[in-house]
Order: sequence, then C-alpha cells, then structure tokens
Amino acid sequence: MTIRQWVRPNVLQMAGYTPGEQPQGKPVVKLNTNENPFPPPQPVLDALKAAVDGKLRLYPEPSARPVRQAAGMLYGIDPDQVVAGNGSDDLLTMILRTFVDPGEVVAAPDPTYTLYDPLTTLQGGQFHTVPWKADNTIPVSALVALNPKVIFITRPNAPTGHATPLSEVVRLCKSTKGVVVLDEAYGDFANNSGLPLLANHDNLIITRTFSKSGALAGMRIGLGFMSRDIALQMHKVRDSYNLDKLAQVAAVAALENWDAYEPLIQAIRQQRNHLRNQLNRRGFQVPESQANFLLAQVPQGRRSGKEWLDDLKSAGYLIRYFGADPRLTDKIRITIGTEAEMTGFLQAVDKLLTDN
Amino acid sequence: MTIRQWVRPNVLQMAGYTPGEQPQGKPVVKLNTNENPFPPPQPVLDALKAAVDGKLRLYPEPSARPVRQAAGMLYGIDPDQVVAGNGSDDLLTMILRTFVDPGEVVAAPDPTYTLYDPLTTLQGGQFHTVPWKADNTIPVSALVALNPKVIFITRPNAPTGHATPLSEVVRLCKSTKGVVVLDEAYGDFANNSGLPLLANHDNLIITRTFSKSGALAGMRIGLGFMSRDIALQMHKVRDSYNLDKLAQVAAVAALENWDAYEPLIQAIRQQRNHLRNQLNRRGFQVPESQANFLLAQVPQGRRSGKEWLDDLKSAGYLIRYFGADPRLTDKIRITIGTEAEMTGFLQAVDKLLTDN
Repeated sequence: MTIRQWVRPNVLQMAGYTPGEQPQGKPVVKLNTNENPFPPPQPVLDALKAAVDGKLRLYPEPSARPVRQAAGMLYGIDPDQVVAGNGSDDLLTMILRTFVDPGEVVAAPDPTYTLYDPLTTLQGGQFHTVPWKADNTIPVSALVALNPKVIFITRPNAPTGHATPLSEVVRLCKSTKGVVVLDEAYGDFANNSGLPLLANHDNLIITRTFSKSGALAGMRIGLGFMSRDIALQMHKVRDSYNLDKLAQVAAVAALENWDAYEPLIQAIRQQRNHLRNQLNRRGFQVPESQANFLLAQVPQGRRSGKEWLDDLKSAGYLIRYFGADPRLTDKIRITIGTEAEMTGFLQAVDKLLTDN
Repeated sequence: MTIRQWVRPNVLQMAGYTPGEQPQGKPVVKLNTNENPFPPPQPVLDALKAAVDGKLRLYPEPSARPVRQAAGMLYGIDPDQVVAGNGSDDLLTMILRTFVDPGEVVAAPDPTYTLYDPLTTLQGGQFHTVPWKADNTIPVSALVALNPKVIFITRPNAPTGHATPLSEVVRLCKSTKGVVVLDEAYGDFANNSGLPLLANHDNLIITRTFSKSGALAGMRIGLGFMSRDIALQMHKVRDSYNLDKLAQVAAVAALENWDAYEPLIQAIRQQRNHLRNQLNRRGFQVPESQANFLLAQVPQGRRSGKEWLDDLKSAGYLIRYFGADPRLTDKIRITIGTEAEMTGFLQAVDKLLTDN
C-alpha cells in the first residue's frame, strides 16, 4: 500500500498554499504580509494578560458568543448574524464547506486573494476567474454565466488595492443565483464598507479579519456577517470550539476599544498615500489603494520585480513578489509601515535606483 | 431564492454536533466534558503572560514548528512526523479532508466519540459502526469488510473508558487497506500508548489533545503523529495558520514542563480508581476505565440516567448523559475531579440514594 491509495486525488495533486515568509529572528522590516505595523492597543494586551489563569483548563464558549455580542454592539448588528472564525481563512473554509459540493463552481474576478483557488480545490469544487474590468468594476455577466454557487469579491482587492464600487456588489447580489462573499480583510482601510448592504441582500456574506487593521494576526480572529439563516448553517460546519479562550478575550477587547485603533488606521492611510506619491515620482507606477499595501509596477528597463524583492531584502526590507502570474511579474507589493519604516524604505529604494 | 438552493443537502440535513454544556458563571462542579480539574502548571501560565506583547501583531509560525519540535523532543519522534491542530478536532477534520472523497466509508467500533459521525457526513462520506466485541477487542474483520478509507479507534474509548489492547491496533493496521486513526485524546491516563507502533505501521495516525491531561482545553491544541509522507499531505489540507501564537506558546511550555503534569495525572488516576470502587459499592456498575472519566450504569429500579443528571445538577454537579443511544440510556459519565470534588460528589450521590 502506498500513500496514493489513501489520499484523495485532488489533495495529492495540490501544491498547497504558501504563506508569506515569516522571518524568525532576522532583523528585517516586514512589509510582506500586510500586518499592522503598530502593536495592539494596551487595553487589548491588558485584557489578555488578565485572562491567563487556571480557567484555561476549561473549554471556551463554543460559538464565541462574547465576541459575537461585542461585534453586534460595534457594528449595530444582531449577534446571531455573526459567525467567528479562527482567522478569516477559517470562515472562507466554512463558507465553501457550507455551500459547495464536488464539481460545483466557485468564481472570482482576477487577480484576487490566492487562497480561494486551493480552498475550492480542497472542497472538490471548480475555481474559475474572470478578469476585473479595466475600470475596476465587477465582470458581473461573465461571472454569473459561470453559474457559481459562491462568488468571492475581495474589497479592497488583494493584491491590487482597489475597492470596487459598492453599487457593483449590489448588482452582483441581484444577478447571481449563488452566494456572494465580500471579503473585507482590508475593509477598515477603505473609504466605506459593505456592511449596510446586508439588510437587503440575503445572499451576501461579509468577512473581516483582526490580522490587518486589528494588529492581532498572531491571535487568528475573523468575523463573518450574514443572514441568521446562513449563520445557522455555518455553525453546523464550524469546528465545535474554533476560537480559543484568549483569542475570544483579545477580540472582545479589540471591539470594545475600537476607538484606540482609529488613529493607527489613519496613520497607515496617510503613509499609504505618501508612499504612493513618492514611488510614482521615482518611476514606479502605483495605482490608488484603499488597503494597507500598494501594488507597484517597477520602473521599466532596470531591475525586475524579482530583483527588487532580493535587493530590498538585502537592504533589510521584506516585500512580496508574485512571480507566477504574468500580469504581476513586473510588480511588487509593499505593506504600509510606520512613518520611520516608510522613510527608511524610500531611502533603500533611492540607494538601489542610484546603484543601478 | 431560499437557503435550500444555496446550502449543500448534507449540511442542511445535519443537526450539528452539540458540545457538552459550558455553564457560564453558575457555581457548579464541572464533571461533564472531561477537562482536567487542576490548572495548568505555573510555568505554562508564566510563558503565556510573557508572550502577551506587541508581537501579537505578527502572524504566527504557520506550521507551529516550535510545537512540533518540542513534541519531537518529548516523544522521541521526528518533528516532520507531527502535525499540530487547533484542538484534536481540527486534526480529525484534516484527516477526513485528506483521505475521504464523497461516498467513501469511514468506520469505527461502537460506541465511540460522537463527533466522527457528523464530521464524516460533512465531508460527504458514509459513517458506519460495528459494535465493540464483548471483551473490548476490535471487530477487525467486520470493520475491514466495510472497505473503509479511515477507521477511528478511540483509546481509551469514549464514553466507555476501556483501552483495547495495542495488539488489536496492530492487527487492524495489518488487515485494512485504509488508514487507522488511533485517537489518544485520553491517552495520558492509560497504561500505555500506541506511539511506538508508528515506526512499523505506515497507515497509522495517532491524535492527542492538550484539552484533557494538558489542562489547556481553553487553548485548543492537538497533535497528530504519522509518517512523514502523510504529514506532507495533511499540511496541504491544514489552515495556513491554524494555531495562534499563544496556543503555540502554551503547547511548547506544556511539552517542555511535562514533568509538572505527572503528579496531576497520577492524582486523577487514583481518584478514578477510588470513585469506581465507591460507586460499585453503592449499586452502580462501573467497568474499569483508563481515561479521566467513568461510565457508570445507574442502580436499577430507582431513578433513571436522565434523573441522575437532573438531580446531580440540582446538587451542584454537572455530569454527562447520552440519551439517544439505547445502550447508554441507563448510564451516566462522570469526569474525574480533585479529591475534594470527588468526596463532595459521593456525598451528593449518597444523599440522593437516601432520598429515593
């Protein structure tokens, strides 16, 4: 007997998703996985420390009810319309396991978050993409023609940073017979959110994460917002205790102290717009971004995207490069850091431009 | 459009798994979900507190490598043979998603852990059981005749507490063309473990949890041990960052300070044997258990299993009752607590026996 007789063919054939590099102990500035450059506010850390006690011997609240209640308060939504995830990736998996049977179609505009494809394959579904329209609107007819059970719209989009108009999301919800997932992992950095659309669209699910604006990537917390009926089905698919006690404590503290995040988010937005201007001045082509990163086309005729990755790494700045996709081969993605980090980053860019 | 058009039929039809009750704030002694009655040792709590800092803004190590390395040290196994889970339930899900395609069979001796059935249904598989043999050995031929992709053996078994001989596990591994999962959630309370069998059986996976002996149910930590080849496939199915930073810190501290757990585990074993003797003297029928719980048949002709549940709850002791299964209808399951808790529990039992 060999492994090939045991393992599902679609798992055997998968390459597996490669997360962004997490340097261990090396002194680099991490601008590669869109984490928040600021630590979580002190009340969040205080709440966590206070919760480290002997009661960790007990199972956590199975459905993360305290988190759902705190989210309900902050966002003005019924806690029964909220499902918590072990990161929003967990919610994406739950969504696929709730709606997609083998052979069914999952669709998204392209380019998009690279995890949807392997998660769909894992579920036995067929993942299809349609290019974003040139004006960054959704190719609604082409997506709907695929007859998908689930359509993923990342807003702001990764890795491009654009936020398609909310009217486009409405148009898609009305046109499709499937479920629309509005992935707002970067939603707090955008000018607006799709949350108000939930009231009028039964087939809309919105996912959010605490890994970006929430400065809690280490704690794996995601939230899904949806109709009560969909939430009931998602809870069946959810792992019985998917959020540990400390993740729940961190999430509640973050939601209850969201005011403390606002200046951090504002600072990131300012640095984003500043860095975009500065890179454009230096020959990069950087479109507007509503996320906490920029996707920059490198200056033509000089070093390639891959060379920028390597040279910036040598200079102490870790960015992201997506080699495989032909439309991304001349582009690099830079997470927005603190003012000091962005100043240092621009100095490193200037040195490389002068060297070559 | 309605929810029935969107949701997978097998999810729609599922009732969903009901975890044991987690009383919020009520003054009861929890003897219902097999948690450890002792808090985690102080070095574990200290490590957790020390890890609560601004670095929680960063993603955790994706594959929980520090945990796998610490487990490798403690158990004398290659870290590449270890996969970490967000609780061992996460590992059970990963196993089913790695091996089971729609319509394929998953099997287990019955009774067994009640989660295997819904997890298999969720994966589109067929869950079949065969009764344990009267001498608590595995019905190997009958299980193998089902042609299962995966066979679950819980050892010690839940909810009966018996530990089938390891020679039976060997016999099963040699007989089946599928994968054998030895679920050692309660393994630390048993007289021996199947870990040494891994070296000679490529189709064996062993799962363990920190929720019972590890006194860390609140942190959701599980470990799977298997061949390197199977581990590689399981990592593809695993959520990219399935263990948060603090869960990893807790797991490493627990593994590195396992000596501190030994007296706690020994105390639980002693109380288990003591409670068994005491209940047998009072007319209960309680078989030997190698877990941290007892499954007790209630005295005949008096109150029913359900009435024991209710009356003990009124007396401040929360136990577990499995109403649905006809073979369990006259039985209650009692988690082993501290000496003081067991003394109080027996006094409550005596009072109820006197009352009625």
